Amino acid sequence: MDPGAAGTKALVFDVFGTVVDWHGSVAREVRALVKSKGLRVNAVKFAKAWRAGYRPAMDRVLRGEAPFEKIDVIHRAILEDVLTQFKVTTLAEAEKAHLNFVWHRLKPWPDSVRGLKRLKSKFIVATLSNGNTSLLVDMAKHGGLPWDCVFSSDTFRLFKPDPGMYLGAAGMLDLRPEEVMMVAAHKPDLRAAAKCGLKTAFVKRPLEHGRGATLDLASEPEFTVNAGSFLDLADHLGC
Amino acid sequence: MDPGAAGTKALVFDVFGTVVDWHGSVAREVRALVKSKGLRVNAVKFAKAWRAGYRPAMDRVLRGEAPFEKIDVIHRAILEDVLTQFKVTTLAEAEKAHLNFVWHRLKPWPDSVRGLKRLKSKFIVATLSNGNTSLLVDMAKHGGLPWDCVFSSDTFRLFKPDPGMYLGAAGMLDLRPEEVMMVAAHKPDLRAAAKCGLKTAFVKRPLEHGRGATLDLASEPEFTVNAGSFLDLADHLGC
Repeated sequence: MDPGAAGTKALVFDVFGTVVDWHGSVAREVRALVKSKGLRVNAVKFAKAWRAGYRPAMDRVLRGEAPFEKIDVIHRAILEDVLTQFKVTTLAEAEKAHLNFVWHRLKPWPDSVRGLKRLKSKFIVATLSNGNTSLLVDMAKHGGLPWDCVFSSDTFRLFKPDPGMYLGAAGMLDLRPEEVMMVAAHKPDLRAAAKCGLKTAFVKRPLEHGRGATLDLASEPEFTVNAGSFLDLADHLGC
Repeated sequence: MDPGAAGTKALVFDVFGTVVDWHGSVAREVRALVKSKGLRVNAVKFAKAWRAGYRPAMDRVLRGEAPFEKIDVIHRAILEDVLTQFKVTTLAEAEKAHLNFVWHRLKPWPDSVRGLKRLKSKFIVATLSNGNTSLLVDMAKHGGLPWDCVFSSDTFRLFKPDPGMYLGAAGMLDLRPEEVMMVAAHKPDLRAAAKCGLKTAFVKRPLEHGRGATLDLASEPEFTVNAGSFLDLADHLGC
């Protein structure tokens, strides 16, 4: 094991982008819908616009400007805006509800399940996601993600990067912050976890925003581990 | 599937006694400790006395006479009383702490893991236990219990039979109460769940209090399903 990781007992995972490929999964379903309904919509731009509404909506809750809502509700509100923006007016309520649940059906990255199984042999593996519990449970059943435990925004009625999320997960596991490692493809999430005393693993997901997107994939000495995949993370952690 | 069970989407499980054998597991560890320390203690009586302190302690919290505490803390307070009662004065702090965590190491009944795997193929399977999250996660890793999700007293800061436990689990799964089935070896737990609108499965555990104990194992038409084991429950539910 990397010496800096000694003493880790649990790994808590960001999910959207880190464990599952939201961009590819959403674009794929939108593309199929566009085809079946004869719409003129760029599925990749649609997926990006939908995702782009997510962080501002959570930030409004964290600033106290909006009440806590589950991500399913937030996703649906953004979807309505995006449908208007893309001039899609022909979807029935059942079609919109089904499309909104694409976030429950996101596909794991190719290394996710195999990596999690290796990591689970040595550590507690849990989600620590801004997704809601039902979304995370559906996704896990759909993709075969072997979580020991699901921590979500509705467990704590907060969103990352509120410290209550990171310290809340450690508290529910009865672990000290330094016994918990946050695993994420996003540096701000890891920096917020580190401020709470958690260890950190940066996992590079170059395709999170699809091909051709420019992402900050540089390793950083500030993180406990920098890894290219969950299998590489398992190697670093001696599983 | 039994017709009364139609529409069930998630099964939530009582754990102590229903999924795992607290009596046998605690008595076994106490017996080993008694032997290694040369104590004169009846391990079966010790296990029963420890468990007997549990319900009154939770009831004090539910009546507002004591603040919410995790079961680990409650178990430890009862353990101190039971050690006094059995005149055991020679345990070091580390030995007491280890013994207290026997509740994290309780063994599944012989049918539990196999039954849960079958049930998990068709339904969400989750704990709904008065145990705390870390206890339930440790126990699952120890015994190979394949939960999709862990709901515990510290998820809701309540104990069963408070309606907030049953309705809280349904709410976090975004299911209607009648889409959730409570599985338990204890009739009061099932009756409290039924009052909240959940379906119910009574699973008979004749050895919960060891050999020779008299338990109420009669099937009841008020329950959605009456089953002799988790495998029998899987048969009833068509898995």
